[in-house]
Amino acid sequence: MAVEGVPVEPVGLGAGGDARARDLDRHVFHSWSAQATPVDFVLAGGSGSWVWNEAGERWLDFSSQLVNTNIGHQHPRVVAAIQEQAATLTTVAPSAAHRVRGEAAEAILDLAGPGFDGVFFTNGGADANENAIRMARLHTGRDKVVSHYRSYHGNTGAAVVATGDWRRVPNEYARGHVHVFGPHLYRSEFWASTPEQECERALHHLRRVVESEGADSIAAVLLETIPGTAGVLVPPPGYLRGVAEICRRHGILLILDEVMAGFGRAGSWFAHHDEDVVPDLVTFAKGVNSGYVPAGGVIVSAPVRATFAGRVFPGGLTYSGHPLAMAAIVATLAAMREEDVVGNARAVGEQVLGPGLADLAARHDVIGEVRGRGVFWALELVADRATREPLPAAVVGALKADLLRRGLLPFVAENRLHVVPPCVITPDEARTGLTIVDAALGAL
Amino acid sequence: MAVEGVPVEPVGLGAGGDARARDLDRHVFHSWSAQATPVDFVLAGGSGSWVWNEAGERWLDFSSQLVNTNIGHQHPRVVAAIQEQAATLTTVAPSAAHRVRGEAAEAILDLAGPGFDGVFFTNGGADANENAIRMARLHTGRDKVVSHYRSYHGNTGAAVVATGDWRRVPNEYARGHVHVFGPHLYRSEFWASTPEQECERALHHLRRVVESEGADSIAAVLLETIPGTAGVLVPPPGYLRGVAEICRRHGILLILDEVMAGFGRAGSWFAHHDEDVVPDLVTFAKGVNSGYVPAGGVIVSAPVRATFAGRVFPGGLTYSGHPLAMAAIVATLAAMREEDVVGNARAVGEQVLGPGLADLAARHDVIGEVRGRGVFWALELVADRATREPLPAAVVGALKADLLRRGLLPFVAENRLHVVPPCVITPDEARTGLTIVDAALGAL
Repeated sequence: MAVEGVPVEPVGLGAGGDARARDLDRHVFHSWSAQATPVDFVLAGGSGSWVWNEAGERWLDFSSQLVNTNIGHQHPRVVAAIQEQAATLTTVAPSAAHRVRGEAAEAILDLAGPGFDGVFFTNGGADANENAIRMARLHTGRDKVVSHYRSYHGNTGAAVVATGDWRRVPNEYARGHVHVFGPHLYRSEFWASTPEQECERALHHLRRVVESEGADSIAAVLLETIPGTAGVLVPPPGYLRGVAEICRRHGILLILDEVMAGFGRAGSWFAHHDEDVVPDLVTFAKGVNSGYVPAGGVIVSAPVRATFAGRVFPGGLTYSGHPLAMAAIVATLAAMREEDVVGNARAVGEQVLGPGLADLAARHDVIGEVRGRGVFWALELVADRATREPLPAAVVGALKADLLRRGLLPFVAENRLHVVPPCVITPDEARTGLTIVDAALGAL
Repeated sequence: MAVEGVPVEPVGLGAGGDARARDLDRHVFHSWSAQATPVDFVLAGGSGSWVWNEAGERWLDFSSQLVNTNIGHQHPRVVAAIQEQAATLTTVAPSAAHRVRGEAAEAILDLAGPGFDGVFFTNGGADANENAIRMARLHTGRDKVVSHYRSYHGNTGAAVVATGDWRRVPNEYARGHVHVFGPHLYRSEFWASTPEQECERALHHLRRVVESEGADSIAAVLLETIPGTAGVLVPPPGYLRGVAEICRRHGILLILDEVMAGFGRAGSWFAHHDEDVVPDLVTFAKGVNSGYVPAGGVIVSAPVRATFAGRVFPGGLTYSGHPLAMAAIVATLAAMREEDVVGNARAVGEQVLGPGLADLAARHDVIGEVRGRGVFWALELVADRATREPLPAAVVGALKADLLRRGLLPFVAENRLHVVPPCVITPDEARTGLTIVDAALGAL
């Protein structure tokens, strides 16, 4: 362990410790993996921005697991709320009214701002997008959904085909999906050289695809407000307003996927609040309760809700509005408000991560670009700054292993190191992490 | 409240009680509902086979909510396990090894029996079926999925199109799905008059569809072992063996959906254990932890796992193997084993519900047929026994309201009353429930 000054908390060790955990893991069929590769990395506990294994080795969590523990690990107020709800009622059918479900919906609507009139709860981000797509199709009576190639929207039927990256390709069993390129100046698809040009050309491209597909055939444009796993692709100013304008002109619904960008990650409650745009549907998961209990959902605008006022909404799930998930949402949002967790994320981004990562880029040629805001950043790692050729996978893998050895848990995607710590990270912890990244990049 | 002798437990009343819960509920967009209809029924707590609202009114839960609280409400051991895990680690990325996830997978594999070699965890039954379909398609290199018209497999992209009932129709955006009629002698699609004939003809029908679609184009046959919401359609002896034989002959995978039928509901750990058939993939959710924390998954046979030994499985989700869900699974399965909850379900079915429902049918002409086993029963309600014309929806709705007034929470689907209490229901409680049903049918 290379990190000093970290509080060690007791770990509930079972017989055999990490070796036993690794052995038991052979029974688990893992996400996004070849199953013959054993999982070596064990986690057993965490607190705030730190995680540890059963042996007590600790890591600064610069991944927030899958970019979900916005409030940090084991926030006592959220843990207590889950425990209290567990003692009262763990599960209830979606058809009954249940107090904490209404409270969770009310708290989310308060944050979403005017124009929204209901929350449909799901188990995660994928089924949130499934249901938003369903609502858009039934509201408009149209079929097609337009999304970005550089995007991730989840792994079920429609969500995975809305997804733009390679994960869509072996799963392409849903129809009605069309993909466009979004703005990404560093790897522009539009031969652009300024953010303004990239924005204008990306909007032109979208407009031409919409016209060519037939605007009347398009139910929704579904975009991550800031595409996350695709590389924290902060849109140029005006892009989302331009998309909203195209949608409005053609009666197309705008669905913004805030699963990763929302609830503090980008330094605001919803990333689209910084973009001066009002979508028709907003999907969420992850940060809404930091994944303490699986939950996601759709925030529904008044006109869409009105469509289903007298008509049965043909969607649902057993655990919609699950009591434990709802209790975790209510406690998470209250704690985040009172502790100004979102303000902290914004300040750490502006004062520590932004300048710190820029400084790293100034000193390490391997960094081709730094993008982000709040606690939502990506370093584009390149073999050659001039050609922007991505750093080879083997080198990225070695960097990841070195970061782990140095006591930092990284989030790596393709040739990028994403810097996505909990929103509660302190300036000192953020600096500690940057020091580790600096050392690992220096050792490359 | 019509029911005597029920222990009243304290309810954590908030200001305003049920009225406040109803008021807050206006913020919730509800599953399978027209949103303008306010939700009047409030739930606030439960214990064993009983639930109550904030005012302390109690109901005997003959629904198990959405047929998921197999171990009953608020089992102390499961609640404690959730609380303890919440105190240790609430969330962890799927890519790390985590002890309780391995323990949950091991416990499920122990119950599944030989031939299975891994558990992929999801958030519920829908994404369990999504991932089973994905595995089957990639394992076989084929496209089509055959399922029953009278079925429900969940509400995301592929799962809802595999579904046979009306819920599929407004959501039919996935391709590659083919439907067949399964056996259901009471409403036979095959002009059959005996179970043997229904079985033989249903298999003939399946065989002809498989041949006509092209057996080499079919990745999987996906069936609920006992179709649940479709009416507890217990298959005639030999049907599932016959399906398995057709699958084996053509290299088609057999996926059995045990989301509702499994983990004690039908009086055994897996309903297919009573059918002498070994599927390639088994999907589960609900009873595995009684829905105390959202969870589902796929039990994977050794050959399918081998397909993904050296090849990346292109599926995953943030909350796969969620610690709270896993802790709830481990505690639920241990408690069910030690308390012989499955044996209780079987015995209550054989000794109380089976004979008791047959007695009701003998005395109430409105019951056209009684089907089921364990704590998994349906009463087919008819306007006319000779024509088998379903009881009109308004009358079924009145029956449901009357049962609620009499202190029983029913599960109603179309023209059927499903009798699906928790697996822990005592013989006396089951008799209490039958007495209420008897009175309500008498008052029709």
